[in-house]
Amino acid sequence: MTESLTPELEAIVSAAAAAAPAFAATAPEHRARAIVAVADALEAAKPELVEIAMRETGLTEARLSGEVTRTAVQLRLFADTLVDGGYLDARIDYADDDFALGVRPDIRRVLLPLGPVINFSASNFPFAFSVMGGDSASILAAGCPLIVKAHSGHPELSDATARVAAEALAASGMPEGVFHLIHGREAGVAVLKDPRVQAGAFTGSIGVGRLLADIAASRPAPIPFFGELGSVNPVFITADAIAERAAEIASGYLTSVSGSAGQLCTKPGFAFIPEGGALPEAILEAASEFPEHRLLDPRIAKSYDERRSAVLGSPGVRAVIEGGIRFDEHGHGWATPTIVAVSLDDFRAGKEALVEESFGPLSILVETPEGTDLAALMPEFYEGNLTGTLHLSAAEATGTTANAAELRALVAALANQVGRVLFNGWSTGVAVTPAQQHGGPWPATTNDSSTSVGTAAITRFLRPVAYQNAPAALLPEALQDTNPLGVPQSIAAAGESREWGSRWR
Amino acid sequence: MTESLTPELEAIVSAAAAAAPAFAATAPEHRARAIVAVADALEAAKPELVEIAMRETGLTEARLSGEVTRTAVQLRLFADTLVDGGYLDARIDYADDDFALGVRPDIRRVLLPLGPVINFSASNFPFAFSVMGGDSASILAAGCPLIVKAHSGHPELSDATARVAAEALAASGMPEGVFHLIHGREAGVAVLKDPRVQAGAFTGSIGVGRLLADIAASRPAPIPFFGELGSVNPVFITADAIAERAAEIASGYLTSVSGSAGQLCTKPGFAFIPEGGALPEAILEAASEFPEHRLLDPRIAKSYDERRSAVLGSPGVRAVIEGGIRFDEHGHGWATPTIVAVSLDDFRAGKEALVEESFGPLSILVETPEGTDLAALMPEFYEGNLTGTLHLSAAEATGTTANAAELRALVAALANQVGRVLFNGWSTGVAVTPAQQHGGPWPATTNDSSTSVGTAAITRFLRPVAYQNAPAALLPEALQDTNPLGVPQSIAAAGESREWGSRWR
Repeated sequence: MTESLTPELEAIVSAAAAAAPAFAATAPEHRARAIVAVADALEAAKPELVEIAMRETGLTEARLSGEVTRTAVQLRLFADTLVDGGYLDARIDYADDDFALGVRPDIRRVLLPLGPVINFSASNFPFAFSVMGGDSASILAAGCPLIVKAHSGHPELSDATARVAAEALAASGMPEGVFHLIHGREAGVAVLKDPRVQAGAFTGSIGVGRLLADIAASRPAPIPFFGELGSVNPVFITADAIAERAAEIASGYLTSVSGSAGQLCTKPGFAFIPEGGALPEAILEAASEFPEHRLLDPRIAKSYDERRSAVLGSPGVRAVIEGGIRFDEHGHGWATPTIVAVSLDDFRAGKEALVEESFGPLSILVETPEGTDLAALMPEFYEGNLTGTLHLSAAEATGTTANAAELRALVAALANQVGRVLFNGWSTGVAVTPAQQHGGPWPATTNDSSTSVGTAAITRFLRPVAYQNAPAALLPEALQDTNPLGVPQSIAAAGESREWGSRWR
Repeated sequence: MTESLTPELEAIVSAAAAAAPAFAATAPEHRARAIVAVADALEAAKPELVEIAMRETGLTEARLSGEVTRTAVQLRLFADTLVDGGYLDARIDYADDDFALGVRPDIRRVLLPLGPVINFSASNFPFAFSVMGGDSASILAAGCPLIVKAHSGHPELSDATARVAAEALAASGMPEGVFHLIHGREAGVAVLKDPRVQAGAFTGSIGVGRLLADIAASRPAPIPFFGELGSVNPVFITADAIAERAAEIASGYLTSVSGSAGQLCTKPGFAFIPEGGALPEAILEAASEFPEHRLLDPRIAKSYDERRSAVLGSPGVRAVIEGGIRFDEHGHGWATPTIVAVSLDDFRAGKEALVEESFGPLSILVETPEGTDLAALMPEFYEGNLTGTLHLSAAEATGTTANAAELRALVAALANQVGRVLFNGWSTGVAVTPAQQHGGPWPATTNDSSTSVGTAAITRFLRPVAYQNAPAALLPEALQDTNPLGVPQSIAAAGESREWGSRWR
């Protein structure tokens, strides 16, 4: 059963499994305090953590410092979420002697933590999608012991973050074994295969994500696997929007493409614009202000360099901003943004070379002839994506212009293939809020039923259990009539069933 | 892409895919009316449908007639669910200039239908888990075009049910292509593999369920697959419960084991009782009243016969009620209940032969010595189960007896491995209500995040989409400030984020 684990991993997984019942039973306020303590400790350690992160990732101090704040805010939001208790989806059906199908027992349902979960962290967000990032926050908030697989791009930072977090959890009285950090893909795979591990989370490439998802699905007892993978985030910009504010759109686009050197899963990889418009020129004018930026690691830099050459070499592609990449003596690549334009016909002809994600500061303008059915382009060129964006004019936003039906069709086409549809904005900011949706159909994620950002992320690590005619003394607190935790409870009273469907005849 | 589909299947899948946008856009009241019309039509056709079902399945008229009612009630409940709109989990975060992480845009999130879904129907519930059963009801209520794969055990009934449903849907003005019936496992597999199909549902054996789940997971674009598979539903009965009401427990147990000839996924396959108690004798006394019952089909009968012999032949197993099975000239098997008893030691020694599901009216009493750690038996003997049951005395239900801690540990152990924990009842009734949970960890289901009975089942066929800064004219109705559908909306106001986590320091 556990033959493939090294003694060290065996100790970690058995500690996590042993901690699961006690961690699940921690009082919500207690668990919340521990999570807030982690947030506070990370912010207190910000200077030393950011210094390591800068060295290991090449990301800027401003970006990394903001990311620590985001990570801390995220942890605090999950602390509030777990104490609020709405995520438990507590449902109570009172017993009903007059039930439409005979006597109905008292049934009460709540979500319980799954048990130990492994989280594979990301390269491009060394804090917010890493050791104590959003996935870890939602796993701990759900009450599941957490095993994090560090990303090989920032091992020292991972260790330092783990030390800070482990101390805060222990000092807050959390059970031993609720949090471990491991290194190495082989170790991660071995843990993912272990029967005591109940779910996996991942942020990274399509290739690795699919590999891990397949492992999770093919275990003797399959487990859920939540992978957030690749995305090219198409943008559609109308002629009227360009006429209204070409300079603003150009500047927003360039900022979004070049931020964090384009190494964001929400970078706009494609913008569909009407041919012959003023946008390319506006982009060229806005371009002077972007300094070169180091890519995360030499492997990513090399792959970006190859991708960029392939795009520039595809028939009909012309550089709007050529940009470039140079390599330093350590093999690190330093890039400035590359923006190219191509006609829809040439894009179609070069689809295979062009449509893939370029992980770096490159984006492709596709110039569409008048009368193009924009809604049809989504299924023609793309699979699932994290985001899809529409820029329209003030008049078009009213839904009363001559092209209103086309715009509605385009919005529906985007909603059908992405997790988040944006209007007049840029996809690279992902607010951490209750309504956020960071997901999307394959290959944006391996599992499109949930989000990896925002409070809805917590439900990934829970499973529903119903209690039938349970004595009050043996019910979970969230399901008790006295509701000692004060959580929202949906109640189905007796006598309702006779009316079911009658309103809709 | 669709090379493996026959022309007939290609026509069905493309009709379903073409119908998806229009069906998703039907007004909730309109879709609800259509679903209620299906319910009404099924009840109107009850006499002819039950007659076919009796012939094809061998189930009794009373059972089948009740099942039609259940199926109709279930459809009406989903009609109410979809109009209520709470299942949409509509969330609105208002824009917030003072947000903790910088300006927050307006973000609104709702669940949208997945698109075409295939539902593989069950043998043992020719109505309630078949053509218009619970899975079909939740798929249609969610707004997803439905392709049902008929079970080979009742093809004529499936065709008759499909005619009734298709007429009602068409007469209610639903788009063409929203419902199709297909026959044959090969056809089902071909449809499950088709890239236009977005999810699968299944009720049946572990073997077939796993096969289909693996197909869904290994597609180029994997899709969710919700299989409800096998379960043995362990029961634990305390000494005090037996002392209090042995005859009542004996009679309830026998009724639950023998109902529908034991061919229910919630049949109690094992009851753990204290050794030396009065229950076996009480069961023997209660046993005279059970007439023989035809098993669903010759294949199931043969496999039950073999299973029963293996159980009876396992060392240390003694018959409490021997029961039996005889075969008629058509190969049909007619069974009466078999109840056996075995000591915990012999159960442990014979685990491999004994612990598997017996699909038919057989159940095993396991006699445990005083002082047995009951909570430890669940992980020792069982994987995931649909249900786990505890019978206790009135005094034990107060949680104040000397064994209260052991009982709590047992309830926690059950909750950890099953979808529904019952007290002083029998698992074979599954009420169709908002709080119901019909699921459980592998191999009870392929996917433990959801239920296949009750209104929570609808979320299986939906995916979340967020709209960022969307103009009102382009927002789905459920997310509009004017809330024309009157659905529940969770609202996050501006200004809240500064306080996050502050209460839990």
